[in-house]
Amino acid sequence: MDDLKAMKKEYADDSLALHTDLYQVNMVETYWAEGMSQRKAVFELFFRKLPFGNGYAIFAGLERIIEFVQGFAFTASDLAYLQEELGYEEDFLAYLGQLRFNGKITAMREGELVFGNEAILRVEGTLAEAQFIETALLNIVNYQTLIATKASRIRNVVGEGAPLLEFGTRRAHEMDAALWGSRAAIIGGCDATSNVRCGKRFGAKVSGTHAHAMVQAMLDEYEAFYRYAKRQKQMNRKCVFLIDTYDTLKSGIHNAIRVVKELDIKDLFEGVRLDSGDLAYLSKEVRKLLNKAGFQETRIYASNDLDEHTIMNLQSQGAVIDAWGIGTKLITAYDQPALGAVYKIVAIEDETGNMVDTIKISGNPEKVTTPGMKKLYRIINLVNHRSEGDYIALEEEKPQEEGRLKMFHPVYTYISKFVADYEARELHTDIFVGGKLVYEVPQLYEVQAFAKGNLDLLWDEYKRNQNPEAYPVDLSQRCWDNKMNLIHAMKEKAEGVAKAT
Amino acid sequence: MDDLKAMKKEYADDSLALHTDLYQVNMVETYWAEGMSQRKAVFELFFRKLPFGNGYAIFAGLERIIEFVQGFAFTASDLAYLQEELGYEEDFLAYLGQLRFNGKITAMREGELVFGNEAILRVEGTLAEAQFIETALLNIVNYQTLIATKASRIRNVVGEGAPLLEFGTRRAHEMDAALWGSRAAIIGGCDATSNVRCGKRFGAKVSGTHAHAMVQAMLDEYEAFYRYAKRQKQMNRKCVFLIDTYDTLKSGIHNAIRVVKELDIKDLFEGVRLDSGDLAYLSKEVRKLLNKAGFQETRIYASNDLDEHTIMNLQSQGAVIDAWGIGTKLITAYDQPALGAVYKIVAIEDETGNMVDTIKISGNPEKVTTPGMKKLYRIINLVNHRSEGDYIALEEEKPQEEGRLKMFHPVYTYISKFVADYEARELHTDIFVGGKLVYEVPQLYEVQAFAKGNLDLLWDEYKRNQNPEAYPVDLSQRCWDNKMNLIHAMKEKAEGVAKAT
Repeated sequence: MDDLKAMKKEYADDSLALHTDLYQVNMVETYWAEGMSQRKAVFELFFRKLPFGNGYAIFAGLERIIEFVQGFAFTASDLAYLQEELGYEEDFLAYLGQLRFNGKITAMREGELVFGNEAILRVEGTLAEAQFIETALLNIVNYQTLIATKASRIRNVVGEGAPLLEFGTRRAHEMDAALWGSRAAIIGGCDATSNVRCGKRFGAKVSGTHAHAMVQAMLDEYEAFYRYAKRQKQMNRKCVFLIDTYDTLKSGIHNAIRVVKELDIKDLFEGVRLDSGDLAYLSKEVRKLLNKAGFQETRIYASNDLDEHTIMNLQSQGAVIDAWGIGTKLITAYDQPALGAVYKIVAIEDETGNMVDTIKISGNPEKVTTPGMKKLYRIINLVNHRSEGDYIALEEEKPQEEGRLKMFHPVYTYISKFVADYEARELHTDIFVGGKLVYEVPQLYEVQAFAKGNLDLLWDEYKRNQNPEAYPVDLSQRCWDNKMNLIHAMKEKAEGVAKAT
Repeated sequence: MDDLKAMKKEYADDSLALHTDLYQVNMVETYWAEGMSQRKAVFELFFRKLPFGNGYAIFAGLERIIEFVQGFAFTASDLAYLQEELGYEEDFLAYLGQLRFNGKITAMREGELVFGNEAILRVEGTLAEAQFIETALLNIVNYQTLIATKASRIRNVVGEGAPLLEFGTRRAHEMDAALWGSRAAIIGGCDATSNVRCGKRFGAKVSGTHAHAMVQAMLDEYEAFYRYAKRQKQMNRKCVFLIDTYDTLKSGIHNAIRVVKELDIKDLFEGVRLDSGDLAYLSKEVRKLLNKAGFQETRIYASNDLDEHTIMNLQSQGAVIDAWGIGTKLITAYDQPALGAVYKIVAIEDETGNMVDTIKISGNPEKVTTPGMKKLYRIINLVNHRSEGDYIALEEEKPQEEGRLKMFHPVYTYISKFVADYEARELHTDIFVGGKLVYEVPQLYEVQAFAKGNLDLLWDEYKRNQNPEAYPVDLSQRCWDNKMNLIHAMKEKAEGVAKAT
C-alpha cells in the first residue's frame, strides 16, 4: 500500500498518451513483436445510428482531436509506469517512447452535418499510430457530437431569435465535459454559456447573474436585489433577478420591480428568471405584473430541467418565456447520454506491400463494416439548393464528373433514384498530413454559423425533432459490389474453419 | 475575429479557477462591493433523491475536490481575461487575485453510503471563498457519486466473485469523465478498468487484451490469435481471445482452441470474450466447446451494452458467463446520467457578527432546505450491528450521549421510533482546516473496501436493486423545530411584501 501511494505521486502528471484502453497497448505490442507495426493502415470513425431519434447530427470535437494528436507522445512517467507496474519490455517501451503521430487525418469540419454509417474522419498511418489513438478519438467525438446535436434540437424548438443559454456545468460529467460540452452546445446553437473557462479558452460568450445563495446570504430579498443592482448600475451591466427564492408572485417579482424603480435602471432591467414552480402559469402572471409596471421590454428567463420536450409543452400552454437556460438535460444529453461511434479498420498493407480491404462481419447486419479506401460526398441539387443525400464512393471514383448519378439505398437496394444537375461536395478536408497540422481551426462562432448554414441545405422533413424522414447515405455501385464480394469471401472462410474442426 | 484568435492563444492555460458559472463571479463581486465578502458563511452539499431508484448512493469525488481546492487560485491569464473580455474592475480583480481557500471543509469519506437530504460535505469559510467553489464541487460530486453508485448496482447482480471490468472510456463524456469515472467505478465495486491512465494515476488494476481490429489487420483470425498468443506466451501473460470478428461458433472459438493447443498454453488460456450476438445462447455453446476441448477452467467474458438489467436477464436465461466487461451503461450512468446534488447556504454571519440560519423556501416541499449548523450521524444498532438510519442534529446536540434516541420521519412525522443501545457515528471528518489539508487520502482499493464494509451495515431490504425500502434520514426534534420556525418567519415576510404592493 505504501508502494501504491508512492507510485501515485510519481505518476501524477497530466500526460494524455495513456488515455486509452489497455488492449491498444497489447495490440500494438503484438504488431511490434511481429514486425507489423509500421504497416500502413486505414481506419474510419463513424456512428451507425443518429442520437435522440434526430434526423441529423452535428459533428463537434475536431479542435480537441487536433490538440490531442499534436500532443501525442509518451512521457518518461508513462513509460516508467508501463514497465514497473505492467511489466512491458524495455525494447517495446523504447519503440513507444519514439512514437508520434506522423500519419494523415482527413475529417469533416466541425459544424458539419453527419449521418449514420459515414466516416466523420479517416486516419491513415502506421498500424501502431492509427491503432493507438482510437480510444481518445472516440471519446472526444462521441461526447461532443452528442451535445452539439442535442443543442441543435433545443434551438429548433425555441426558434431563431430567443436567447438560449447553456447552464449545465454542475451536472456535467466532470470538468472536461463542462468545458468541451459547453463549447459543443454553442456549435449546436446556444448563444452563450455560464462556464467562464469556456469563455476564456474559446471566446464563448458567457452569461450569468446571481443565484438563490445571494438572496439568502443577505437575509432579505429586497436588500439582496438592491445591492446586486446597485453594483450592476455602477458597472453599467444588465440585471436579471432570480425571483423564486421565497415566493415568485408574492415577493420576488415585487422586490425586483421596486429595486429597478428606486435605482431608476429601466434600461438595465434585462429580465427576471424563474427557476421553479409552474413555469407556464408563473410566466403569464409575471408578464402581467411587468407590463403593468411599465417594463414591456423586460424579458422572462426560465430554467429548471428544461429540454426540447418540456419547452414544447410550455409553449403549447402559452407560457410567456423569452429566454431559456438549459442545464442538466443538455450537458448530459439526458435522454440518450451516449453516441455509439466506432473506429474500424477498412484497409491494411499486406506482407507484399499492397493495400488490402478489410471487413468485420456480424450477426447484426448493421454492424458489418464497409471496406476499402473511400470518399464521402454530399450531393447538392443545383436547382433547389437542397441536399439529395450523401454518397460514399471508392477513392478512385469521380462522382463530380458523372453527368447522372445513381443513388440507391445500401440495404433496400430497390430504393433508388437518378440525380442530374448536382454538385458532389467532398465532406472531408485534410487536417494532418505527414503528422503536420495543415488545417486552420476556425473560431467558435464561425463554426456555429457553419452549422447553421449546413442546416439550410436540408429539407425540413429531415429536421423535425420527432420522426424525421431518413436522410439517404448511399454507396456507389462499385463500393457496394466491393463490400458484397468481401462478405462472401469471409463467410466462406469461416465455413471452412467450421468444417475443418 | 482576429482578436478572438489571438485571445484563444493567450488564454489557453489549464487553470481551473474559472471552472465555474459566471454568476459566482458576479455574486462575489457584489459581496465584495458591499463589504460582505469576508463574512463567515456555511454551505452544505447534498442531493435530494437517490439515483436509479437505488436504496443508497456511494460517495465519490473527494480526492478530486482536494486537488481542486488545493490548487484554487486565479492565474494572471484568468484575471486578464476577466478584465479584458468581461470588463471587471481592477480593484475587484486584485481581490480575486489574492483569493485562496482558507476555510474549513468537513466531508464524508469516499466510499461512504449517502442518502437523500443529508450533507455529503460542508464548507465553512468566507462568503466569497465558499461561494466561488460551489460549481466545481457540485460538478465533481454529482458525476463521481453517480458512477460509484451505478457500479455498486452492477456488482450486486454479478455477485462477489465474478470479475467485473470497466470498459467505457470511449463512451465517457470526454477525458476527465473516463479517468475519474473509472476510478469511481472501482470504488463502487469494479475490479479493474481498461483505462490505462487510471491505472497510472490511481493504482487501479488495468485490464484488456485485443480488439476486432487486430484480427482484421492480420487478415486472418487464426493468424491473429496465433501471433497475439505467441507474444503473450513470451511475456507469460494470460490470453483472452475476442472470438466474434467473423463468426463466434463457426470460426472464433475453433481458432482460439486451435492456437492454445498448438502453442501449448493451457495455463495462460484465461478466457474468450463474446461482444455481439445472443450472449445467452452463444455462451452456452461456447462453454460446451471449451469443456469438450478440456478447457473447463477457461472463462467466458461478455461485453456489449451490458448493465444490471441485461445481466439479470442473461442470468435468468441460464447464460454461462463468468466475467463481465461494462462500457457505455456504466460510465455514462445511462439510465440516469445526472445526480441532482445542490449546494445550499445554511448559515451566514450578519452585520453584527452573529451567525444566522438561512433557508430557501419553495413551492416544491422537497426543495425547502434545512437551516443551521448541523451534524450528521449514522445510528448503528449495537445488538444487530445494522444501521437504524441517519440522524441530523444541530451542531451543539450530543446524540451519542442520549440513552434513548427518538427518530421520526422529517415529512410524515407520525412515523417514529425509539432506539436504545446504539452508536451515533459521526459521518463527517475534517478535510481542510484553515485552508490546510488535514486528511490523508486513502489508496483506491482501501476506498473500495471501505464502501463494501459500509454496505454490510445495511439490511438487505435497503440494498435490493428494485423498489428498495426507504432508508430513514431523520432530523432531531430541535433541528426540525428550527426549520419550521424559519419557514413560518420567511413565509410571513413574503406575505408582507405582497400586501405592501
